[in-house]
Amino acid sequence: MNAPTELAHVAPEIKPREVPAALTDALKARFGAQFSEAMVVRVQHGRDESAFTTVPPPAAVVFAESTADVQDAIQLCAQYKAPVIPYGVGSSLEGHLLAVQGGISLDVSRMNKVLSVNAEDLTVTVQPGVTRKQLNEEVKSTGLFFPIDPGADASIGGMSATRASGTNAVRYGTMRENVLALEVVTPKGEVIRTGTRAKKSSAGYDLTRLFVGSEGTLGVITEVTVKLYPLPEAVSAAICSFPTIADAVNTVIQIIQLGVPIARVELLDAGSVRLVNQHSKLSLREAHMLLMEFHGSPASVKEQAETVQDIASEHHGADFEWADTPEERTRLWTARHNAYFAAVQSRPGCRCITTDVCVPISRLSDALLDTVAEADASGIPYFLVGHVGDGNFHMGYLIDPDDAAERDRAEALNHQVVQRALKLGGTCSGEHGVGLHKMGFLVEETGAGAIAMMRSIKQALDPDNIMNPGKVFAG
Amino acid sequence: MNAPTELAHVAPEIKPREVPAALTDALKARFGAQFSEAMVVRVQHGRDESAFTTVPPPAAVVFAESTADVQDAIQLCAQYKAPVIPYGVGSSLEGHLLAVQGGISLDVSRMNKVLSVNAEDLTVTVQPGVTRKQLNEEVKSTGLFFPIDPGADASIGGMSATRASGTNAVRYGTMRENVLALEVVTPKGEVIRTGTRAKKSSAGYDLTRLFVGSEGTLGVITEVTVKLYPLPEAVSAAICSFPTIADAVNTVIQIIQLGVPIARVELLDAGSVRLVNQHSKLSLREAHMLLMEFHGSPASVKEQAETVQDIASEHHGADFEWADTPEERTRLWTARHNAYFAAVQSRPGCRCITTDVCVPISRLSDALLDTVAEADASGIPYFLVGHVGDGNFHMGYLIDPDDAAERDRAEALNHQVVQRALKLGGTCSGEHGVGLHKMGFLVEETGAGAIAMMRSIKQALDPDNIMNPGKVFAG
Repeated sequence: MNAPTELAHVAPEIKPREVPAALTDALKARFGAQFSEAMVVRVQHGRDESAFTTVPPPAAVVFAESTADVQDAIQLCAQYKAPVIPYGVGSSLEGHLLAVQGGISLDVSRMNKVLSVNAEDLTVTVQPGVTRKQLNEEVKSTGLFFPIDPGADASIGGMSATRASGTNAVRYGTMRENVLALEVVTPKGEVIRTGTRAKKSSAGYDLTRLFVGSEGTLGVITEVTVKLYPLPEAVSAAICSFPTIADAVNTVIQIIQLGVPIARVELLDAGSVRLVNQHSKLSLREAHMLLMEFHGSPASVKEQAETVQDIASEHHGADFEWADTPEERTRLWTARHNAYFAAVQSRPGCRCITTDVCVPISRLSDALLDTVAEADASGIPYFLVGHVGDGNFHMGYLIDPDDAAERDRAEALNHQVVQRALKLGGTCSGEHGVGLHKMGFLVEETGAGAIAMMRSIKQALDPDNIMNPGKVFAG
Repeated sequence: MNAPTELAHVAPEIKPREVPAALTDALKARFGAQFSEAMVVRVQHGRDESAFTTVPPPAAVVFAESTADVQDAIQLCAQYKAPVIPYGVGSSLEGHLLAVQGGISLDVSRMNKVLSVNAEDLTVTVQPGVTRKQLNEEVKSTGLFFPIDPGADASIGGMSATRASGTNAVRYGTMRENVLALEVVTPKGEVIRTGTRAKKSSAGYDLTRLFVGSEGTLGVITEVTVKLYPLPEAVSAAICSFPTIADAVNTVIQIIQLGVPIARVELLDAGSVRLVNQHSKLSLREAHMLLMEFHGSPASVKEQAETVQDIASEHHGADFEWADTPEERTRLWTARHNAYFAAVQSRPGCRCITTDVCVPISRLSDALLDTVAEADASGIPYFLVGHVGDGNFHMGYLIDPDDAAERDRAEALNHQVVQRALKLGGTCSGEHGVGLHKMGFLVEETGAGAIAMMRSIKQALDPDNIMNPGKVFAG
């Protein structure tokens, strides 16, 4: 495969389908003020945080406020075989939201109610537009929390659709492990439920897991039941600097191999620390850094911290600094979550092409060090952050979107990162999804047979290909 | 729905399909000594541990020794549209292995090699016929273990196919959380891979999770990559007796709600303890009992144990007895795992109808206490064991297989247990799967829309319905 280019991905031979006036008229009649054809609204819904910018926006936007709204919108679109692109808060990174085949953006951000908190069962059921921060705010009084934290304040529906994770996944898992059940509107406009509130089940095909990570291509998620966790009795965060990335990574590998139940362990390279300092007005030491957090009883946190300090010092880790108050920790993690935005703002007008490979933990050095060397050699500004406890890291190449040559160079780097990860037994996407951007990588990773199986499922559930067409697979 | 009966489940209007001599001849020519039509072999492969006994056995058995064998067997069967029923060690409990539509049993028990141990990544890849005990034996020297432990020494392939779990699931999850990747032979005889060794991935539809729990209806699993865990530094097991089942259950609910990372917490009712004592030559106090295990550092295990003792004593728990040596613990857990066999042997000639509901933890008392009262009133001998930390429990009704009235009464009890669990937000099957036995329950649980979606997937991947037909869905 050649290095992907933007044009290759949008598959120019597939033209946007016509959205007939009869459909927009019918949607307008049904949805009134919940319907918009205003260009500014359409443009806002026709892009995401990816570097793709050249696709025409959707023909219109419907703001759903209920499952019934979603059903009606889908049934009307199905009647005209018009594409439907579910939209949460627009924070996806791989072109998921772009109307590459035209159609209607179905915005569920107004479906933002926490429907039921079952604190005694450690579960909560929410509408898809609830964001992760909102959810944590609303369950705070119960002493429970929802750990999954992609950088952005994403919607729970969108996080389910992309199988998102974040900094806490090393201990608490990803959306794959934390979604118990979904309500979904199918491409025919029917409502189904994919699970119960039971913690485990062997009852039939795992439809929940099929929809988690399906990127809006199989239906629209209208309710999500997720697990909650007791707020740990004790929490402690620490940063530690390392002379080389290899030292930092080897520290992490050993922490994981020893089974230390660390809650978070994040890598920032020296350049990213500098960007974070500038953006978040911090004065972190500008060296390669691990940012860690420990959860548990006071004794357990102490024990974990001691073990990790021992391991780090064997790998030349220095300057352990502890953040024990909630305020200090929040400041640190907010800065970490803003690393992406800090980087993007460091080069005005740039867009970011983000790699997302994840490899078996023992291969993390192999995957990372050559990647950094290639990026340094390229001259393209970049940042490096990593959910390294999971073997997942992100290189963000900050490109000038109008410089096609630079874009191609960054895509070529991305492709090299992916090919290396696949050779090491890893995946092209740890948490961002395939979208428009990794369709070629997905074929390289899974092979034609597995792709054919995915396509069969898509074809069976969505024969007219109206749900977010042109994502995950080309065409 | 009426209470299910055996006849209703085998769907008598669907006749076994003919297996033409041309197919058996072709299989015989290809497989030689790996092929058998001997009645004793066929009968052994035509049943499992369920109470179903009246279905004719498969026409023949193929003993696959490689993925290529599986491919060839499936391709030959596909040519004649003959059913293929994958077979591991025959320990399933819901009629999964019965040749209700005729066909060929495909025995993978000789595919029993551990293919690669990646200790440094905490993963191992095995052939499907490797059993859980064999796996633990083979990885012992690495200091790692595989925690998933259904009662029987099941095969890893079969455990994947039924989405099995067991006593350790409360801490380590089920096969859903622990299978990283599969190699699968599709109903067309193609080989696909469903994942990588990366700990997490957002690359396309989650085919791994689709096959985990698909009960042999979508293809044959020929390789499984699962997670391993470091053997805990400290392990401690304890038993505690309670005057009532309610006291035991309320202890468990509080342990879970507090987030104590307990590794195992099992309920046995007084009757089951008596059966276990008889079968395993133990002298446990014959009262309702929780059997617990704690994993972690010495300090963490001590801390967990103290917390749990405090909770238990608030609920009238008495006689905490500790088993600290590996030998004592093995004796205790082997006895627990043999509870099913102890029960079955207590009524010579009986078969066991096992319930398998799982409910949100806060509803466990509601689900359990009425269930026990109904069983007591029925006069049918039974045993009760529970993976209560997950909200999952099993009533085993020990029936005379020749007494249709008793069977019907037991099935009616099972149905009541399921209906109650569904009302409480639970599932009809926590870990045994649907098989032949819970097809009606699955419809009650998920609704017609979700079943239609599962059927669409089945139809798309297996249009001739050759893979274990008549399981999960009728027809």
